[in-house]
Amino acid sequence: MIKVGSQNVLYPMPVTVVAALVDGKVNFVNIAHVGILNASAPHLISIGMNKSHYTNRGIKENRTFSVNLMPQEALMAVDFVGMASGHKTDKSGVFETFFGELGTAPLIASSAVSMECELYDTFDTPTHDLFIGKVIATYADEGVLTDEKVDLAKVRPLLFDMSSRKYWSLGAPIGDCWQAGRKYGV
Amino acid sequence: MIKVGSQNVLYPMPVTVVAALVDGKVNFVNIAHVGILNASAPHLISIGMNKSHYTNRGIKENRTFSVNLMPQEALMAVDFVGMASGHKTDKSGVFETFFGELGTAPLIASSAVSMECELYDTFDTPTHDLFIGKVIATYADEGVLTDEKVDLAKVRPLLFDMSSRKYWSLGAPIGDCWQAGRKYGV
Repeated sequence: MIKVGSQNVLYPMPVTVVAALVDGKVNFVNIAHVGILNASAPHLISIGMNKSHYTNRGIKENRTFSVNLMPQEALMAVDFVGMASGHKTDKSGVFETFFGELGTAPLIASSAVSMECELYDTFDTPTHDLFIGKVIATYADEGVLTDEKVDLAKVRPLLFDMSSRKYWSLGAPIGDCWQAGRKYGV
Repeated sequence: MIKVGSQNVLYPMPVTVVAALVDGKVNFVNIAHVGILNASAPHLISIGMNKSHYTNRGIKENRTFSVNLMPQEALMAVDFVGMASGHKTDKSGVFETFFGELGTAPLIASSAVSMECELYDTFDTPTHDLFIGKVIATYADEGVLTDEKVDLAKVRPLLFDMSSRKYWSLGAPIGDCWQAGRKYGV
């Protein structure tokens, strides 16, 4: 093993578009520095957002936001909302939105899957606000379901890594979790 | 869009093997509920670990742990350390380890990439301890580097989603981040 500094190599991560109201207007930002906190209800997820982002103020004010996974076809628009800042650019027209249960969390109508979140807590770091969302409702495009379950192969999520600064596609399933290990040591 | 309850659909996530000392002995556990908090040094990452896990006590005691991404070949062993609990099974022999700078965080010698972490903070949830690690040092297998940089295609990470409960491989790169968006709307 070779020491390669103290970099973060926890990749790839799913690319999300976070949507929130800022001063009453819809804004979008591309966030791949995300996380899952638990595996029980209520489901808690995190988005790590640089404090310079325009969207942070809206999340703090409304205490609601959405986390959307866009299909591969949306790559250019997804990248665009990560390049153009809401401080200077009105991005409200990039995606069509609808409102769900919370009333103040815009959800992207053309997403593969979307989570409507209530702000559960915030963890402060020197440069980033970690917004922890409680998933209130989940929405899926009918085309990504198989037997009423979200089918990851149909979601065709965009993945990201910081080393190459590329978007990646998902590959094939290669094993069953809590099954493959039964053969270990046999 | 169809409402599908209030599930977490933030997948796939990279599968990690978390290693720590518990009562002086190496233990391993498979954790895919992970996260990235920031994009600046010191790098902060999170692992969401059910409070029932054996490893949690070791992380709290030593305040160190490692987060390892294993290559696809290790799938069976990776799954095994997620199935067998350290409460009942001595898993110390599953992977060979070495120690880095902290002295109490075992690192997996056969990993693709490994992060040696100091416990930065803990965020408590009703069922899970979210351990937030500060990356102190990063190690890479020589075979995953291209021009001294970690090459995600060579890492060949294992990915996971809870809906299918499968491991997935990474696909191909499909776009450049902070580049593809320049074509948006043109």
